[in-house]
Amino acid sequence: MEKMEKSYTIGVDIGGTNMKAVLFDGEKVVTDYLLATPKDNLNHFSIMLYALIEPFFKKAKEDKVKIKGIGLGLAGLIDQGEKKMIKSPNIPILDGVKIANLLKNKTDLPIEIDNDTNCFLRAEIKLGIGKKYKNAYGIIIGTGIGGAWWINDKIYRGSHGATGEPGRMIIDLENDIELEKAYQKLAQNNPANLAEEAFRGDTLAQKSYEEIGHYLGLAFANIINLLDPEVIIVGGSVAQSSELFFSKIKKMMRGYIMHPEAKKIKILKGKLGQNAGAIGAALLIS
Amino acid sequence: MEKMEKSYTIGVDIGGTNMKAVLFDGEKVVTDYLLATPKDNLNHFSIMLYALIEPFFKKAKEDKVKIKGIGLGLAGLIDQGEKKMIKSPNIPILDGVKIANLLKNKTDLPIEIDNDTNCFLRAEIKLGIGKKYKNAYGIIIGTGIGGAWWINDKIYRGSHGATGEPGRMIIDLENDIELEKAYQKLAQNNPANLAEEAFRGDTLAQKSYEEIGHYLGLAFANIINLLDPEVIIVGGSVAQSSELFFSKIKKMMRGYIMHPEAKKIKILKGKLGQNAGAIGAALLIS
Repeated sequence: MEKMEKSYTIGVDIGGTNMKAVLFDGEKVVTDYLLATPKDNLNHFSIMLYALIEPFFKKAKEDKVKIKGIGLGLAGLIDQGEKKMIKSPNIPILDGVKIANLLKNKTDLPIEIDNDTNCFLRAEIKLGIGKKYKNAYGIIIGTGIGGAWWINDKIYRGSHGATGEPGRMIIDLENDIELEKAYQKLAQNNPANLAEEAFRGDTLAQKSYEEIGHYLGLAFANIINLLDPEVIIVGGSVAQSSELFFSKIKKMMRGYIMHPEAKKIKILKGKLGQNAGAIGAALLIS
Repeated sequence: MEKMEKSYTIGVDIGGTNMKAVLFDGEKVVTDYLLATPKDNLNHFSIMLYALIEPFFKKAKEDKVKIKGIGLGLAGLIDQGEKKMIKSPNIPILDGVKIANLLKNKTDLPIEIDNDTNCFLRAEIKLGIGKKYKNAYGIIIGTGIGGAWWINDKIYRGSHGATGEPGRMIIDLENDIELEKAYQKLAQNNPANLAEEAFRGDTLAQKSYEEIGHYLGLAFANIINLLDPEVIIVGGSVAQSSELFFSKIKKMMRGYIMHPEAKKIKILKGKLGQNAGAIGAALLIS
């Protein structure tokens, strides 16, 4: 048997509401923490980011295990090579910021960044529901809507690092409405809450979810008609509480899929839950 | 220098209006023919298909060059492995037909089939405007709207052989209108003619093309936001006569592209013209 030294990696999923961090041993989460995301100024943000991961250094010392690096998952448009946030819709103070620099004087560990949906999908493929799939599309339905695609044993990044924007799909050209905007309007900026209400039987909430299911079913069909993946793996806060709304998506979707064979696609919920993004960020460090 | 025996291949692009056939020497077209597509019955169709390519056998004999096989490009849903047409929107007599069988008692040559947009894109990549690109999306705008994607040195076929259906994109969910249907309605089933009229200054035709440009710009942006190719190569009868309408597409498209880097995408017209599909079909035989 091969003898390998055990090591840890740190992953942080930096969301518009919370920052979730995991200490990861390559197979499972050793410890995890959560903090509300500071959005007031950059200095506060970087102090809290470091405060979130600092206990991991102590834990690693206790365990006598080396930490190899830190992966950060971020919502929005990033420049992965430059480790820079181009445009953060939920945390505007990060716009244009070189994220790795925020931890520069605090740690010498290598830092990698990636889009949060890429992190989610990577985690689900490597350790979650997607293990047996070679061609999987990932969708996060949370505050916004993000997309990612796993093909040829890696995240597909496109020619300009600019893939994964299903939220920008126009679903009503007459009124120039994008999927994500329509979704946010219907969800009244609290989609998880709406899903809960719908699930408990609230008629108005159910009606909103019917409409959201309609929009999302269409978006899924557009993705399938172009990419024809084996599976779509759905994550994000909304996916946690919404069987109801899954069946609506599936029904709508099937009506718009062109090729009969493509209707065989599976729609699955991720199984790593709220830590998926942070685990996928930790997996950036190899 | 390597010495290779010269050989020919035959390619036929079977469209809803015409069938175009080329005798191809691996680099250029030796001879080409065109016939109106018979749509009355299958017997007539197969007689005419054979009549179209028969002169090539004579020509090859004269040139003392062997023909290696026949490639057929078809619009609609095909099963490439079974060499079967699943659903032909423009030539309904072909629905469910094993296309290779139509030439069975007439020739022993190997026969391969593919989608017509795949053939168009393959030809433009190998011999046309797309030579230097590694990640190219192809769109045919003709009677209908077809799509194809070239990545990793081949046509991307998806998990169920079911990619390339941008025509099914919903652009007006309220009224359940698909891109292709809206396009066909505006083009009044004669898009090439409409393009000509618009090009000559007809105000009504120009207005229709503005709308078509709007729809197509949106479809292009959806493709770019998901796939982020280096280039979109446009072909089909409409692309032949429409600088006008290209600029409208580009303008619309840029408004919907999310990532600033992805706006660098090039939109190019194919340069092989009407024979692109037939050449791409001939390239199926290696």
